[in-house]
Amino acid sequence: MENLVFHQIGVIKTPYTSSAPYQPVENDDQEFYLDVDDRYVQGLKDLDSFNYIYVIYYIDRLKDIPQMLVAPPWAYGRDVGVFASRSPGRPNPIGLSVVRIRKIFGNRVYTSGLDVFDGTPLLDIKPYIKDLDSKIDANHGWIEASDDAEHLALHIQGIPHDY
Amino acid sequence: MENLVFHQIGVIKTPYTSSAPYQPVENDDQEFYLDVDDRYVQGLKDLDSFNYIYVIYYIDRLKDIPQMLVAPPWAYGRDVGVFASRSPGRPNPIGLSVVRIRKIFGNRVYTSGLDVFDGTPLLDIKPYIKDLDSKIDANHGWIEASDDAEHLALHIQGIPHDY
Repeated sequence: MENLVFHQIGVIKTPYTSSAPYQPVENDDQEFYLDVDDRYVQGLKDLDSFNYIYVIYYIDRLKDIPQMLVAPPWAYGRDVGVFASRSPGRPNPIGLSVVRIRKIFGNRVYTSGLDVFDGTPLLDIKPYIKDLDSKIDANHGWIEASDDAEHLALHIQGIPHDY
Repeated sequence: MENLVFHQIGVIKTPYTSSAPYQPVENDDQEFYLDVDDRYVQGLKDLDSFNYIYVIYYIDRLKDIPQMLVAPPWAYGRDVGVFASRSPGRPNPIGLSVVRIRKIFGNRVYTSGLDVFDGTPLLDIKPYIKDLDSKIDANHGWIEASDDAEHLALHIQGIPHDY
């Protein structure tokens, strides 16, 4: 099957060099930003008019061979299909996060917490448009069917808890 | 800069062979589905527990060289940065749509309307998880600042209108 070639358009900077949270965590004390390569800076025009963006990136620190069934960290050993999970170990290592824009200075887009390692290659930025992307009747799928759905919800939202 | 290689995991089937809408359109009379390659079918386990999914695809029918400023069809000639748009002509031709799952049979995921050409290569499927992805304080960015915001909203939502 044909290979599809993408290229890095910038780099994601986070405080996470050796471990990263499973999902974005709000943290005002740490900096998260996208450094967009100079040749793409003009493409950021008007981006700051949006509250949220999609950040699409290449999951470059993955060493395991992707499996079709995965046991997400929230699922206590339950196996789900890889496409029913946000596991990084997927057939195509494409990462997707929804984050808030804090400010944009030149080629640098400051965001709310990003659940990726420092230095992760950036592939794309898209505006998160309310009428297209905010689905009020969305659900939590297999997560809410879990015996421990409330606890899992804290993990998903990155809310610290001690149980 | 290093090339990042992805590969097709299936194909998107839509009624659109010569033109496609700018965004997903709800249409109960037409079929939209993802045909996932056999070797990835096990990865669909539990996907049907979600109301919505992200479909990530390779925009393969693009002929123009990506520009940093684009004039979206909704914007009446206004230029915005490509990253502030959902224009297909982007530095990396990665497409992203949020769609509803209708049903899953074997390797086939039936969805609500998808704004892509028939035969578009599928790259990834991710669950749309309410607490992660549904941002109630999202906005419409430069679109809502437009003089014609209400009209643009109809385009964005794919709602037919005759003005």
